[in-house]
Amino acid sequence: MHNDTIVALATPSGSGAIAVIRLSGPEALTLASNQFKSVSGKDLKAQATHTIHLGHIVDGEKTIDEVLLSLFKNPNSYTGEDVVEISCHGSSYIQQEIIQLFIRKGCRMATAGEFTLRAFLNGKLDLSQAEAVADLISSDNEASHQIAMQQMRGGFSSEIAKLREELLNFASLIELELDFAEEDVEFADRTQFKQLIERIVFVLKRLIDSFSVGNVIKNGIPVAIVGEPNVGKSTLLNALLNEDRAIVSEIAGTTRDTIEDEISIGGMGFRFIDTAGIRETKDVVENIGIKKTFEKIEQAQVVMFLVSSLQLAAGEEAISSFLIEIEKVKNKFPQKQLLVVLNKIDQITDTDLGQISTALRTQASNVIPISAKTGFGVEQLTDQLLNLINTGALRNNETIVTNSRHYDALLKAFEEIQKVQYGLETNLSGDLLAIDIRQALYHFGEITGEITNDDLLGNIFANFCIGK
Amino acid sequence: MHNDTIVALATPSGSGAIAVIRLSGPEALTLASNQFKSVSGKDLKAQATHTIHLGHIVDGEKTIDEVLLSLFKNPNSYTGEDVVEISCHGSSYIQQEIIQLFIRKGCRMATAGEFTLRAFLNGKLDLSQAEAVADLISSDNEASHQIAMQQMRGGFSSEIAKLREELLNFASLIELELDFAEEDVEFADRTQFKQLIERIVFVLKRLIDSFSVGNVIKNGIPVAIVGEPNVGKSTLLNALLNEDRAIVSEIAGTTRDTIEDEISIGGMGFRFIDTAGIRETKDVVENIGIKKTFEKIEQAQVVMFLVSSLQLAAGEEAISSFLIEIEKVKNKFPQKQLLVVLNKIDQITDTDLGQISTALRTQASNVIPISAKTGFGVEQLTDQLLNLINTGALRNNETIVTNSRHYDALLKAFEEIQKVQYGLETNLSGDLLAIDIRQALYHFGEITGEITNDDLLGNIFANFCIGK
Repeated sequence: MHNDTIVALATPSGSGAIAVIRLSGPEALTLASNQFKSVSGKDLKAQATHTIHLGHIVDGEKTIDEVLLSLFKNPNSYTGEDVVEISCHGSSYIQQEIIQLFIRKGCRMATAGEFTLRAFLNGKLDLSQAEAVADLISSDNEASHQIAMQQMRGGFSSEIAKLREELLNFASLIELELDFAEEDVEFADRTQFKQLIERIVFVLKRLIDSFSVGNVIKNGIPVAIVGEPNVGKSTLLNALLNEDRAIVSEIAGTTRDTIEDEISIGGMGFRFIDTAGIRETKDVVENIGIKKTFEKIEQAQVVMFLVSSLQLAAGEEAISSFLIEIEKVKNKFPQKQLLVVLNKIDQITDTDLGQISTALRTQASNVIPISAKTGFGVEQLTDQLLNLINTGALRNNETIVTNSRHYDALLKAFEEIQKVQYGLETNLSGDLLAIDIRQALYHFGEITGEITNDDLLGNIFANFCIGK
Repeated sequence: MHNDTIVALATPSGSGAIAVIRLSGPEALTLASNQFKSVSGKDLKAQATHTIHLGHIVDGEKTIDEVLLSLFKNPNSYTGEDVVEISCHGSSYIQQEIIQLFIRKGCRMATAGEFTLRAFLNGKLDLSQAEAVADLISSDNEASHQIAMQQMRGGFSSEIAKLREELLNFASLIELELDFAEEDVEFADRTQFKQLIERIVFVLKRLIDSFSVGNVIKNGIPVAIVGEPNVGKSTLLNALLNEDRAIVSEIAGTTRDTIEDEISIGGMGFRFIDTAGIRETKDVVENIGIKKTFEKIEQAQVVMFLVSSLQLAAGEEAISSFLIEIEKVKNKFPQKQLLVVLNKIDQITDTDLGQISTALRTQASNVIPISAKTGFGVEQLTDQLLNLINTGALRNNETIVTNSRHYDALLKAFEEIQKVQYGLETNLSGDLLAIDIRQALYHFGEITGEITNDDLLGNIFANFCIGK
């Protein structure tokens, strides 16, 4: 079903100055040409690829719109097929009229991601590059954008493809040996092969490890804010938002209604998860709250205790009950990064601040005094948040795996490669070695799309928007 | 301030497959060329107009996105200036990064409608055509789209411009007579002039009259539904929505939560206004409701009484109290079109239906029995709604005035032309005649934009979206 001509709106729905409608397929040029009246009377089909033409989209006697029509001729297009892009006025009505017109004339409405699927099937990009297109479109901060961009430009798949090729080479040699089994020859140099396997193991390990950071970069780093009402959660989030010189607030049209919020700090996305706090109580309802807090902390990578210093300045008892809370979380979640944020320090004396800080530092290594209201200490807090995330790989421009499908395939490939490594060490026979190598190759191929099937493609492209 | 280079997002905000960013101005080509790395290493500035180029938008070392860049060279562009359109991936983050990059490099963020304003200032379109661009973008049904399209293609302004030119011709001749005042010559043939004035009066009258239909077409024909709860208002609106073979529901993402709704019927927009009904009562609160109902009817062009036949079948009393309601509205609003819709006829006997219909027809000429639930009679209702609107002008493809600014100018021009007509009849002296003609010419010029000022332009283009 990939030889028909598809149509879809490529720009966001809704009204704007212009909208772009995209046609792709063998009939794209003919269909567009039938419904297009060039202002200068040009024959659309005779025009060169990558040219733009002013005219009207007409349906019989009726003129639907004055448009600019862009021509991309097979194979020099996004999909590798003939592509026509119609830039029309941005009225939803006009958009729909044009799309309906082409559907009446024989186009089919494109399914989600179908343009990119066709690009993949026509060899314009490999599977991991195709997946990066969707990541790129959904990227909303510098880090996720950078990774998607790198992957789309083939950084990741070229690394995998190179290893795969070398491995394929050895696989062929070893399989060749099998043909000459009686003669006991070794075409594949075992020392070189071991070195290659070591290199592959090294690269796979690095890629697999990168997923932990890649995953949080893609989805935002989850930070649980543990804090009771009125400790200043909203004020803090607003302060963090202002601190950021990026334009996230403008972009996302961030609704500041809920405390759960995604904020870009230093180009990284942080996902703040509001919790109800975990103060000990006999109240049944509140105890349910504590259970929920723990569930939320479970999802987080960083736990940020937000406390009002005004409250702690009330006396020893307040401090020690807060220390117990910290300890409880530390015991329950020894793996989580902990950050104690002492808010409202503009409202207490320096002496009190000194005493409270000293007390808190007995339980937490990271204590940051701030005033969310005046902005004091907020910069230090954002620095600290960024420090807690291992962004070394990002800074060094290394390949980072963000896609759980790739991660799974890498894990499986790693497993097979370890078998190969063990086989080499134990002088396993060539035929058995070859099977493990083929398995590893299979999983490499899954990433770049050399190995694929309809279910897999269906899953991947279903996540795309229509029109891409 | 129209010699700088402006930038804006031209597609709707939000995420989609692609987004288009538009640059226009003397530096557009240079700025784009500085931030663009062509895949094939082409020099952007050396490329022909109306061509498309694949490459990357770069900011120093950093690659922001892979884009398609469209080139339009002065004067062959929308604005008449050099225009560059960047088709990037549809992530809001990427859109903002690219716009911010060009702003850092010296572009200015475009104000609302500034691209079209420049197009007007550079003579690419006249003022009424520019206004039609905004109408076209906001058109959401066939009728408003058709009118905007006609206006954009110059139908309206060419009619005005032609009359203006003929009038100008006579004005010149009459002013020439003044130079030869002593010699008592008549360059301007008074009989021909009278005929022209008659023609102008005829056209102006038609245009002015067309505004009443043009205005409702543009804003939707307001229909007040007078009906108590449970008479089936929601069901009826849903039935009307389904009856329509257009794709309005898809387009507008119509929220069906409120009864106030805009529905396209037969290509015309109808705006349904829910009212609480006007049943006589002593209850203070309900009497406030009746006052509100009257206010809403005031805004409507059609009053649709929706009543449950089940209720009327209860007896003479129910019918006569309903007849009183109809009479009250008829007396209060003698000008409004009235439509009585008898719903739920599937729930009463034919005998009852006959009796009720006969009784209602004593007060209302339009009584339509329907069952909103089964769909019976709904088609007849939509036909009737369309009949109530005088769409003759629309059907005959005549010019229809939808813009209140044009309407005002036409009224003023008409007033002056009538003075000229009177002057001709009473043999007014040439110098006084010339003054009135000049005044009429002035108002004609206001429509097409030959006469203009910054305030006027500011008002017009402030209604545009940014990026157009």
